[in-house]
Formats: sequence, structure tokens, C-alpha cells
Amino acid sequence: MLNYAMAVASAGRASVMSLDEERMRELYFFTARTLETAHPVPFGALIVNTRSGERLMRATNAVARENDPSAHAEVRTVRLACKKLRCPSLAGYTMYSTCEPCPMCMANALWARLDRVVFGATIADANRHCLQIHVAAKQIARRADMACVVEGPVLRELCCSLFTHPNMQRAFRTWSTR
Amino acid sequence: MLNYAMAVASAGRASVMSLDEERMRELYFFTARTLETAHPVPFGALIVNTRSGERLMRATNAVARENDPSAHAEVRTVRLACKKLRCPSLAGYTMYSTCEPCPMCMANALWARLDRVVFGATIADANRHCLQIHVAAKQIARRADMACVVEGPVLRELCCSLFTHPNMQRAFRTWSTR
Repeated sequence: MLNYAMAVASAGRASVMSLDEERMRELYFFTARTLETAHPVPFGALIVNTRSGERLMRATNAVARENDPSAHAEVRTVRLACKKLRCPSLAGYTMYSTCEPCPMCMANALWARLDRVVFGATIADANRHCLQIHVAAKQIARRADMACVVEGPVLRELCCSLFTHPNMQRAFRTWSTR
Repeated sequence: MLNYAMAVASAGRASVMSLDEERMRELYFFTARTLETAHPVPFGALIVNTRSGERLMRATNAVARENDPSAHAEVRTVRLACKKLRCPSLAGYTMYSTCEPCPMCMANALWARLDRVVFGATIADANRHCLQIHVAAKQIARRADMACVVEGPVLRELCCSLFTHPNMQRAFRTWSTR
């Protein structure tokens, strides 16, 4: 009986993992489309209903395009999702991000009351190519009065390939290094 | 000679401090105006040119009004300032905030390349009235690849009085406590 319960729990876990991988792969392809544009970015985010999986919103980083330092993929996706719902709360929703959210994006996810955040590449992976703030998303979540489960890395190598694409490498040379 | 140099350095320091206090007081009055409106908030921010002191932008928290969890006073002020300058960098500028920036706002200040951030009340002060993320702004700044000087608390009691105003206390009862 114990073995059966463990097998069911394990299968449930595997099924959640593969759902996360499926959505991360979808997000990877969405983000990779920017690599053929004038503003390539390795950062994309997707928000889905935690129970039904229904897609609510997705967006990529637009700091340069919008002249807005807060226009990271995660903050933009939360902002657009909240505008769509006409509500500042995303309780009941899960966010996927091709890269571990920086403290700005993770704190925003907490303020937005997201249930879960699932990321691909890590902050350390991104730091091989651009400046970063070295505070793990899980650490920010642990220190908050609001609850949010943070999981990752998921499909890390696939998400890292967004950073190493030749068009992205060319674009990084124009990014500020101060 | 050493004493003279120390006196000059000390006077210079005092003068910087009183400028910070003057600007914080100005920001306090700007923020306090919301207490008589339908959306009272204790959070206001002001961005000035670090050298000339020229005012660039100021704004208050608008999370409820804009249905945007990222619409904290600091992020809004940075966003509006960058739109005004048509540039995602605020290098050469200083931001004042009536409350210590949360990790979202402090990370945003770092991404925006602000020179300095000066705050009034602390995160612990704010936490007596609303949910918070317990990571000090100075800690976020220390862990970043970008440099930003964080100073505070400045006029802490005056800024705390924004939180304890009867209209603000009434408004807090409608804020989410989840």
C-alpha cells in the first residue's frame, strides 16, 4: 500500500515536471523569436492558470525598446496580465521565466501573489553574459510575508542557449557594462 | 591642518545631510497630499540631479489605481523619469523615497544606474502596517554588479507619520493581508 502511494506520488511529481518542461519549451521558442529581430533578448516569461494551465499572458524583455529599466520580461508579463484581469493580484497563477528572476522580478512576483515561479537558466548563467544582482529568487521568497513556491532550473541548457546564440552574443556587446 | 581638513569634511557632510533632509521634507509634503484623497498612500519618491539638485520627477504609489503590482512609488518615478529623458539610465541622479525601497524597487534603482538612494522610514517601520519582504535595500545594493550608494533613515519619524495618519490607518484596513 505504501509502495502504491509512493508510486502515485512519484508519477504525480513526474507529470508536474513534464508539464513544467512542456511550458518552458513553449516559452523558449517564443523568446527565441526575438533572436531574429533588431532587439534580441534571452529573457521571456509566461503566466498560466495554476489549475487549468490556461495561458494568460507572455512577454519578453523590453528595457531598450521602452526606455524602462523595469521592463524585464517577468515584470512586463505580470503588468500586462494584471491589466487584462483588471486586478493587481495573480493568486491562482504560475509564472515561467527563461531565466531566474532578479530581485526586482521576484519581489514583483511576490507582490503580485503568484502561486509559483518556475525558471530556466540561473542568475549565475546569465552573469556570464551581462551584469546581475546576486541574490537568489528562492532567498527573496523565503524572506517575504507572502508565499510563493520557486522552482528551477528547468530545461537549463535549452534556456542557456538563448544567451549563447550568435545574434544574442552580438547584441550583448551593445549592452551597458557599467 | 588635519583639524581644518576634518572640519571642512565634517561641514561638507553636514551640508549634504541637510540637503537630504530638505528634499525628504519636500517629498513628505508631496506624499501627504494623498492622505486627503480616495487613495491615501504613505509611499512617495523624488528623483533629482545629483550635482545640481534639479528636480526631475516625483510620484506616489499607484498599485491600486493602476492595477499594477510594480507601481510602487520608486518604480513609477524611475519609469516616468526614464520616459522623460528617453533613456533607460539615470546615472547622475539621486532618488529620495519616504520608505526604504523593497527588493523590487532597490533592484530597479540599480538597473536604472541611479547614483544614490536616500530613504525615510525603514522596511521594519512599514511592516507594522503592511506586508513586506525582509531584505534591506543596502544588502541588495551590496550584492549587485552595479554601484549605488544607499543612505537612510533620514527624517524617519516624519516619514513614519505618513503611516500612522488616521486616513492612512483606515485605508490599510482595505489592503490585502494574504
